[in-house]
Parts: sequence; C-alpha cells; structure tokens
Amino acid sequence: MVIKAAVIGATGYAGAELVRLLSGHPHVEITLLASRQYGGIPFSDVYPAMSGIVDLRCRNLSNETSLEGTDIVFTALPHKASMGIVPGLIDQGHKVIDLSADFRFQDPANYEKWYEVHQAKDLLQSAVYGLPEIYAADIQKASLIGNPGCYPTSVLLPLLPLAKESFVDLDNIIADSKSGTSGAGRSPSLVTHFCEVNEGFMAYKVDEHRHNPEMDEVLSLFANRDIHITFTPHLAPMTRGMLTTLYVGLKSPVTTENVISCLGSFYANKPFVRICPAGRVPNTMHVKGTNYCDIGVKVTQQSQRLIMVSVIDNLVKGASGQAVQNMNIMFGLPETAGLTQVPFPVC
Amino acid sequence: MVIKAAVIGATGYAGAELVRLLSGHPHVEITLLASRQYGGIPFSDVYPAMSGIVDLRCRNLSNETSLEGTDIVFTALPHKASMGIVPGLIDQGHKVIDLSADFRFQDPANYEKWYEVHQAKDLLQSAVYGLPEIYAADIQKASLIGNPGCYPTSVLLPLLPLAKESFVDLDNIIADSKSGTSGAGRSPSLVTHFCEVNEGFMAYKVDEHRHNPEMDEVLSLFANRDIHITFTPHLAPMTRGMLTTLYVGLKSPVTTENVISCLGSFYANKPFVRICPAGRVPNTMHVKGTNYCDIGVKVTQQSQRLIMVSVIDNLVKGASGQAVQNMNIMFGLPETAGLTQVPFPVC
Amino acid sequence: MVIKAAVIGATGYAGAELVRLLSGHPHVEITLLASRQYGGIPFSDVYPAMSGIVDLRCRNLSNETSLEGTDIVFTALPHKASMGIVPGLIDQGHKVIDLSADFRFQDPANYEKWYEVHQAKDLLQSAVYGLPEIYAADIQKASLIGNPGCYPTSVLLPLLPLAKESFVDLDNIIADSKSGTSGAGRSPSLVTHFCEVNEGFMAYKVDEHRHNPEMDEVLSLFANRDIHITFTPHLAPMTRGMLTTLYVGLKSPVTTENVISCLGSFYANKPFVRICPAGRVPNTMHVKGTNYCDIGVKVTQQSQRLIMVSVIDNLVKGASGQAVQNMNIMFGLPETAGLTQVPFPVC
Amino acid sequence: MVIKAAVIGATGYAGAELVRLLSGHPHVEITLLASRQYGGIPFSDVYPAMSGIVDLRCRNLSNETSLEGTDIVFTALPHKASMGIVPGLIDQGHKVIDLSADFRFQDPANYEKWYEVHQAKDLLQSAVYGLPEIYAADIQKASLIGNPGCYPTSVLLPLLPLAKESFVDLDNIIADSKSGTSGAGRSPSLVTHFCEVNEGFMAYKVDEHRHNPEMDEVLSLFANRDIHITFTPHLAPMTRGMLTTLYVGLKSPVTTENVISCLGSFYANKPFVRICPAGRVPNTMHVKGTNYCDIGVKVTQQSQRLIMVSVIDNLVKGASGQAVQNMNIMFGLPETAGLTQVPFPVC
Repeated sequence: MVIKAAVIGATGYAGAELVRLLSGHPHVEITLLASRQYGGIPFSDVYPAMSGIVDLRCRNLSNETSLEGTDIVFTALPHKASMGIVPGLIDQGHKVIDLSADFRFQDPANYEKWYEVHQAKDLLQSAVYGLPEIYAADIQKASLIGNPGCYPTSVLLPLLPLAKESFVDLDNIIADSKSGTSGAGRSPSLVTHFCEVNEGFMAYKVDEHRHNPEMDEVLSLFANRDIHITFTPHLAPMTRGMLTTLYVGLKSPVTTENVISCLGSFYANKPFVRICPAGRVPNTMHVKGTNYCDIGVKVTQQSQRLIMVSVIDNLVKGASGQAVQNMNIMFGLPETAGLTQVPFPVC
Repeated sequence: MVIKAAVIGATGYAGAELVRLLSGHPHVEITLLASRQYGGIPFSDVYPAMSGIVDLRCRNLSNETSLEGTDIVFTALPHKASMGIVPGLIDQGHKVIDLSADFRFQDPANYEKWYEVHQAKDLLQSAVYGLPEIYAADIQKASLIGNPGCYPTSVLLPLLPLAKESFVDLDNIIADSKSGTSGAGRSPSLVTHFCEVNEGFMAYKVDEHRHNPEMDEVLSLFANRDIHITFTPHLAPMTRGMLTTLYVGLKSPVTTENVISCLGSFYANKPFVRICPAGRVPNTMHVKGTNYCDIGVKVTQQSQRLIMVSVIDNLVKGASGQAVQNMNIMFGLPETAGLTQVPFPVC
Repeated sequence: MVIKAAVIGATGYAGAELVRLLSGHPHVEITLLASRQYGGIPFSDVYPAMSGIVDLRCRNLSNETSLEGTDIVFTALPHKASMGIVPGLIDQGHKVIDLSADFRFQDPANYEKWYEVHQAKDLLQSAVYGLPEIYAADIQKASLIGNPGCYPTSVLLPLLPLAKESFVDLDNIIADSKSGTSGAGRSPSLVTHFCEVNEGFMAYKVDEHRHNPEMDEVLSLFANRDIHITFTPHLAPMTRGMLTTLYVGLKSPVTTENVISCLGSFYANKPFVRICPAGRVPNTMHVKGTNYCDIGVKVTQQSQRLIMVSVIDNLVKGASGQAVQNMNIMFGLPETAGLTQVPFPVC
Repeated sequence: MVIKAAVIGATGYAGAELVRLLSGHPHVEITLLASRQYGGIPFSDVYPAMSGIVDLRCRNLSNETSLEGTDIVFTALPHKASMGIVPGLIDQGHKVIDLSADFRFQDPANYEKWYEVHQAKDLLQSAVYGLPEIYAADIQKASLIGNPGCYPTSVLLPLLPLAKESFVDLDNIIADSKSGTSGAGRSPSLVTHFCEVNEGFMAYKVDEHRHNPEMDEVLSLFANRDIHITFTPHLAPMTRGMLTTLYVGLKSPVTTENVISCLGSFYANKPFVRICPAGRVPNTMHVKGTNYCDIGVKVTQQSQRLIMVSVIDNLVKGASGQAVQNMNIMFGLPETAGLTQVPFPVC
C-alpha cells in the first residue's frame, strides 16, 4: 500500500518534522511539498540535513496547483491560513490532517474567544480531535482531523483516564508545563533568539495561553461537565521536549499504585503511552525524536493531591508524529507504521 | 573596616561562589580557604578563572589550624560535616554562617526525620534562619546563621508577605520549582553528567525533597499555624538559575494589583527583592550572577488562584550571596556591600 | 537473514548507541548484552528511553557465559579490556568488531607508545581498520575489525581521497577538531560534569591526543610515506557532533571545484559521504543521529591552502554506526541496512 | 572624577554590555542612552535585568539632541551608521570610541574592499586602533578610537608579541576561531534562532570574514611587512566566549617555555592578559563576564609549529570591556577602573 501525501507548510518546524517522518514511512510517498517562503527551492536546500533524502523542490501553492492523486494532505500552517485552505481541500475529496488550531474546537465560540472569527464553522462538527489514544474510532472514519496542540496532548493523556474516577476533584487541577523552544516555530523573533533563550528559564502567557481552552473543551466533553484547568506554560533552554507536571486534587484517598494501575489498564494496548513504575519519573530525553508519551505518578504523603508528570517530544507526539499516527489509523495501517524510531540513549 | 573571613569547604560550588563574592567585597579580607580535597593547592589552580585574583593556597583543616584573628567563618560543607565542626568554631568565639542544612531547623525532629541524628541540638535554638528580608533584626545579633536552602528562598520570599493575609488559603499551596544544575554541587555523578542533563528536563524527588520540611517549618512559624506546601523540584539544562511557580488558593477575591501592592509594601526597603509590574513575569537570566529575587504575580481570571513566579540565582541569593548579605548585617555594613554586581544583558 | 549479535560493554554510550541501532536493524537479533556495572539489570532500567523496546537483562560476562549461536560480537570496552577478551572470542570462531583502540594499529610500536604493552600483537596483522569507504574489500573478509576512532574518521574521510594528489603538501596538514561531550563516555568525571562543560569551550591534549598516531598511521600506509598531522581537539558544549576543520598546504594551484569533483568521484557510490556544493559548509546538526559524514571545501583566495570541513555524529559514524556498517559488509547486507534513520530538521 | 558618558546604540548587545560596565564604573555617570528602536522607553524595560539599576529612558537621537556636557560618546552602531554620525561628534569636540568597523582601518582601500565606500576618510589617519595592550600611548592622546573586532582581539593579542621574533614564519599563520552567538548581535535572524544554533556547530564565511583584513592590516603595520592570516570563524552553541587556536609555522626551533617567557615579558604590566603556565590551556568559561584574555602555548613535538590558544569574552574584551579600558586610558584612570568583575567559578 502506498499513500500519496502532500504537506502544505512543509518548511516550518512541524512541516519539516512531518517530512522527516513521512520520508521514512514504509507506506508513504511524498508527492508535494508546499511552502510560501521557499517555492521553487529543493527541500534539501532549506534543510541540508535532508540532502540526498528529500531533494523534492518545494512549490508555491496556487489555485492551479493540482493535488490530484493525493490521498492525504497535511496542513502545517499558522491558524487562520489553515481555515482558508482546508474547506477547498475537503471539497476536492481529500482527507486532511490540520496541525493548526483551526479545527480543534467543537464550539466555535471557544475558538473565536481566543483566536478570531472562524471562517469554516460548518466543518467543526465533522472534524475529529486527533488524539488517537482516545478517539481512534472516530479518526478512522474522519475526513478532517484537528491535530491536537502540544500542551493539550501532554495534559490530556495523563488526565483523561482519570476524568471519570470519583477520587478526582475535577475543580482542582493545575498543569505546569515546560516546553523546548522548537514549539515556538521557525520564524525568527527576539523571544526565540539564541542568546535570549540560552541559560534562561521563564514563564509566559500565565493563565492566558490559547491551549488552555483547548484542553478545557476536550476534558469537559469527555467528563460531560465543565472543567477548567489552571495552566502555566514555561520556556526551557532546549530545542525539543515538553514536560507537564499536573497537580490534581483528591476527593478520597488513593495510592500511587492504584493510579498506575488505572492508567495501565486504560492504555493497555496503546503502543505510544508508557506508564512508569512507582518511584520513577520521566525525562524528556527518554522520548526525544519518538512518538512516546511517558507518564509518572505520585500520590502525596498526605493523600492530598495526585502529582502526575508527562513527557513528550513536542514536535513528534505533540505535533507531526501524532499526525502520522492519525494518518495510519485513517488508512487502516498499524498505528506504529513509520513511527518506530528507537530513542537515543543520550541526545 | 576589614572583616577577616575564612571559608571552610572553599572549592565546592557554593564555597567558590563565596570566594568570588568575598574577593570582590570592599570590606573583606580572605584569611583562610579550607578544602579537604585540594589542601596545599592554590585556589587558582582549582579554579583557573581566579588566576591573579585569588592565588591563596587551600589548606586541609586540622585541629591545629589556627583561626585566630578570623572575624567570621563560612562553612560550606555537606550537612553532617557542618554540625561536626560548627560547635567548636562557636566555642572559640567565631561568628559562623553555615550553608548546609544543619542549622536551618528550629525543631530537631524535623531535621532528624529528613536528615539524620542531630549532633548539636543545643545550638539550634540560638541559630538564626538567615533570610535577611525577614529576620534581619535577629541576624544582626546572631553568632550562628543557618543559611537558607535555594528552594526555600525562592518559595518563601513570594509567600511570606502574604502568609497573614486573609485572602490566602494556606492549606492549598503548591510550589513547582525548576533549578539549574549547579545546585547539585561539584561532585561528579551520573545525574549531573553533561550528556545526561543537556537537552533533558525532569522532575525528581517528587513530594520528598528535603527542602520541603524546611520551607514548611519557616512558613508555619511565621504564620503561627501548621502549613504544608506541595513541592516538586525539577532539573533544567542550564548551569545557574531557579524559577519557582507558586499556585496559591484564594479564599476571597483579590486582584493582581492588590497582590503586587502588598508585596511592594512588604519589600519597600529591601534592595534585593524586585516586584515586577503587572503583565511581566521574571526570567532567571535577569538575576544571573546577582543577589536579586524577582517576583511576578497573576491572579487567575476566575479569581480561583494566585500564581506567583519567583527567580533567583541559586548560587547567589540561593546560597553564597545570601550568606554575604547576612554577614553584612551581622557586621553593621550596608546590606548591599560586595553585592552590587550589575546583571548581564545576556549570559 | 537474521544475524545474532552480542554487545559486550552495552551500557556505555557507544554500547548503548549500538543497542539503539541494532534493535532497529531489520536483520539483527540481539542475543546478549553484557555489562560489568549493570549485570542482572534490564537494559531499559539503565536506559528508561528503551522501555518496551529493549528490556533484555544485562549480564555480567564470565568464563561460563556461552556465546554459542552468536554470529557477531561487538566489544565496546575501554582499551586494554578489549585486548584481554577479544583473542578468546576469535578463538571461539566469532566475528568481532572492537570499538576500542586495541586493534586499530598495524604497528604495535605505535600502539605501545601511546597506550601500553599490547597483549594480542599477533591479531594486529589480521585485524582490519574498519573505515568502510576505504577498506570495504578487506572488511568483507575479516574476522576482526578495529573500528576507527571518532577523530580519525572525521579527519581521514576528507583527506584520503586527496592523499595521492600531487597538489597536496602532505607535510603541511593541520586538523582542528571540535567534539561534543558524549565522546568522553558515560563515566562521571569533573571534566564532563554539566557545569564544567556548559557555556564553556576549551582545547585539550594539544598535540598529544592518542587519536593523532592513529590518523597518522592510516594516512601514511595509504599514501605510502610518513605523514604527521598537527592535531588539536576541542570540547564543545553539546552532546553529540564532531566538526573537523582541515588546513592542507597546496603545492600547486587548484580550485574549490576541482577538489569537490575529486571528492565526488572518490565517494560516488558511498551512501554515507555527502559532499557539499561550493559555497556551503556543513553543520553537525545536519548529521545528528545518522551515519553521514558531510564535507565542505574551500580553496583560499591566494591558493595557498585548502580548507576542508567535515562533520559526523561522533557516536554514529564516529563509533557505533560505523560498526554496524562494518557488520553489514561482513555479512553481505546492503551497507545502509539499519542505518537509514532520517536526520532531524532541528534537534 | 566623574566622566559623563553617552552610549549611542545602547540596546544592542554591545551597547547593553557597555551600559552594564559603565553603570558599575566608579567614575562614570551615564548621561544619555540613544536607541533608534526603543526611543522613549526606559532602558530597564528593554532589559528587565536592569530594573532599579538603569531606569534611564532611551532617546531617539535627532539633530536637536544636545550632547553638551558629555565627556565621551560610545557609538555602538552597525558599520556605515557610525561613519555617518561620528564626524559630527568629533566636530563638536567630543571624544569618541566607536565599536563598529568604521574606524579600525588605516588604509581606506582595505575598508572599502570588504565593507563599502568610506564617508569619513579624513578621520582614519587620526583614529587610533583601540588595542590598549599595544597602543596605549596613542590611545591616551586620541580623540577617536576604532575599537577592535572580537576576532582580531583574540588573534592579535597572542600573535603581536611574537611578530618580530625570528623564529616565527609570518607567511604561515592560521587562526581557527570559535565564537559564542552573542557576537552576531541582537537582531533576530534564522542563523541565530535558538533551534538553529543549539546543539549544532558550524564554520561560516570560511576565508572571507571581514575581520580577516582587519587583523592582517594591524599585524602588517606592526611587523612592517605584508602578512596574511588564513582565518576560519566558527559558531559555537553558547552565548558568550571566543576561543582562537593559532597555528604558527616555526623557522627555527623554540620551546614552549621560551614562548611563554616571551609573552610573559611582553605583557608583564598588562593587567588583562594572563599567560597560562606550560601544560595548561585556557577555557572560555574562565574569562566570562571579564576583560581578561588568557593565552596558552604549546610547541609541537617536532618543533614544526607553535600552537597558541587564546580566550576572551567576545562582549567584554572583544567589545565593550575593551572600550571601557580605552576610555580609562584616555582619561588618565587606572586601566582596570570599572573592570574588576571577579570571574564566576561556573557560569
């Protein structure tokens, strides 16, 4: 089986990471790489690491660009740009996985409060939130996937299995996240300038990050009640990796082992979620370059709170790896196809 | 005025940082640098950065080593080693500032639960906890200072001014701290090996770090009731810097501006605490190499919680700078003497 | 075809990197992982990144350990330890790829001058220097491979194609190399302590590094005359990657294009050497995690010297990837089997 | 004595580093900070690290801006911008230290070949090259200083003392330099984007960097003959620091000790040059934040070449610290005034 895949927005970090994964995928042929900035230029001139591997010339997408024969289109564009182009792709009968925020929300009001007026509201109902550990059945049948944000992925994977447990106080959840800098994308800015990031550590958008309503909506729909997480993102002086520390109030006593067992059952057949044994907490280094989410758990000594720590590679499970996982499900492939990169001992 | 100062344990990171600060202090003369590992070797051979600045030979402290004429002794030793040597120094009439954990606790039971049997319990009552913004009056009269831990410093400075405010829910405090690697000291180990730290991020000692009872005891004594903070330390891939994100439950509504004003009044005449204006959160880079603690504040939109972010340089305000500040107070000098290093624009 | 492979010294960085590559190799089954330090412990407890991927328990190798059925043994041990164990393995009929320096030299005197008395001199004549781009024919027939050092690999690949060209002044070659810290291995020491490496840059073992005689011997044998390279290694604050800048005297004028063409012909069918077009110089980031060696070239404006810049991942092409490439050749597999990891856009 | 100082271009990295040093200088009062980008904004809003230290509002320099009463003007502008403004400042009778390349060349042809048409050629003859260890006498009398580039500083300080020694082959000098990223300035660009620098290492502008003719001219004038250095700059994944490895051909045998002694005599009374004892090579970390240049020396075993390694902080001795040192000399202060920052043990 060969899936013909196009990547629109191929030269940003999420797009280029898609190209990395798709070019090594045993069932994928890349047919088109679109880039507004690098139209006409070989992909390997933009990313010399890819010399001899992906020398395909990027194209500047226009109305005349034919996507005929393409089985799936990945849109790795800034939000707003995505909703401008996706409806046309869907009309042409393409399957689409969108890595922007444009199709992650079911309720357009949530989107519009944090982003802007939505231009393709009618697609929101049919779009599926692409968190495969939870929504695989819907993903399999979907034409349009709203690929989750990196922060929501790192928050939801540890939380969702517990969202219906009576011991959890859903009104008392805090997520303290730390992200590598690649999450900010490839456009140069002072905030991502080497000397401004290196050897520094900071919080940003405290209680006002746009991934907050995304995680709130998914969690609320899942638990069937309104939930709001207190969320603080931080920027860490490293390229890849995201670690989220969750503080969850407890309504009744529970042990670390209980929670591990609960998570273990929930993710029993999910190849990309690894639950740490009691006493071990994960490190972003353990998942770098891979599609894994590792989760560690500790109930506090006073049984007051449950602390969970999750790690992902923000560009893989937090973006492009998850998109490939979604594609695999949509095309009936094993979930792990093209995603079996072995992690580094050190990186 | 010239203060004659000795540093015992001069070649660890806290000791060497003391040497940096004392060698540039206008009122200090370093009379003795003791090091078990480097006895007989010039300090500048251990730290070539100091060539021509501190070429004094380290000494291997023995019972015969005379400290006569020394005005103050800094002990920058591992815990247990400190309590073995400090009583003798006090007996000889020296003022002592101890950077270990051995003299930070008032209640020996707290110490013994987390460390080991205390060998100098009688000194605990007279020892003063060296957080100068709070205890300057006691420090001035003290002979023995238990210099605070880095994590407690970064947690207590934002919290203490609010500890008696009615809007604060003292039963609902979480501290999520991120530390540079220098806090782990200079002894090589796998956990501080370059390749194991670089490009990684991890939590450690979740809900079981020994600085947790230290911050609990100080806060409880100050608020005059039992308080327990949920505390998670993390290791960040950088050398210096500590950022703590505090989540404090609110009993009644309060605005960001209220809290800023409250902190601003409390620290009005304290040269080393800087409160950020609303909308700004601090970065560890802003305090690197300095004795500052910068604090930013944000009340969540639902007035559910207060989020505070503090940053310090773990080796300066979190250790050696604070020790020098304590010394200044003990000797009647301006608090800032020798601590006026101007921060770097980038570092 | 399934090759049964054992790794002795599996928990050092080179060993663990071998495990990474072998566990993803389509024709390899790992049958034994030996570790003196972690005998009895699952490999994935030593490297949690490998949980669920390589959970095989490490073994403490003893005289009774049977290697029956093993097709190839990789020895990733410190020098001296290797020459103690390799002769026995060869006697038992195993193919061996040794990653230490013990079997890299043809002339035992060269080895003994820089290392120590050689205990298996008779094997040196049959051992083949495992630089596959040059010695593939010999490697194919060999039982014992001395896998090259990382610095020699980065120096020899750009130099050897030119060693017989008349325009090159073989008496006037300088190699200035910069290495990531993983080359120093996994044993903690002050020199590889995070805070001693991070944000620092230094030269070390100037004109006295043990890889210097190795590159000299190979180059001299190849060019059939005595050659000595002036060599300075440096330590860079990063985990992986090695960049070597070569300064080669010119006896007669030559253009950048001439040299590129010369290298291009030489490596025409070599999948792991990529020659940069004129005007581009390589970056270690482009080869991270891969077995590539990228080479860039510039003849100085006065035609005085040729400058060449090569980059490798010191743990892959500089160690374990090259070992797997050698194995592939020894077993008649495509050179690239198990080595087709796609490089990261950023890492 | 109080020197009233203005900094034009105060918010770039060199300018901000000047502000750091001048604000801590015991004999300086900063009277004006000019910034095109941040006119009207307090300096400490641009650099929050400086809150409470330098809160002076930046000004957008215009023709009406009065510099009356200013004793010295530092221009930290891009080249070309400097030569547009400096003649007017000189006309108004100000002393000027220019940190751009505009006044570093004696021969306008050299400048114009690598930069552009020079608009203030008549000032080149009176401008003094601000390398105080060599030109202090001229600096003392000068009105206009062309402050040296960072690379030339790191190359010239080890080389100049030997330039008239008969054992040195002046036709055979190579400088291989490695720089931290702050040298590229504060303007965001892809090449200085965090993820493009971190964990990478590259050469750039091989044999075509504009600092090459600068070092050539100074060395040629000093030795009174034409000299051309082969020069390759590299970018290292760190913020501050520059290490240059020099390879100097030898015409006659010389020992490491001879060279050390030669350098030691030359710099006997120069407080900022430290010569390492035989067997030690410097590390950029040893000079971070300081105005030191440390130099290590090794003659190769075959007495074929002399290898010298120098380190500086590119923003201090390579830019702003050197500028302050020049100011001190111009005003008859001790060279070290305001430059006595004690280096960090680790940073």
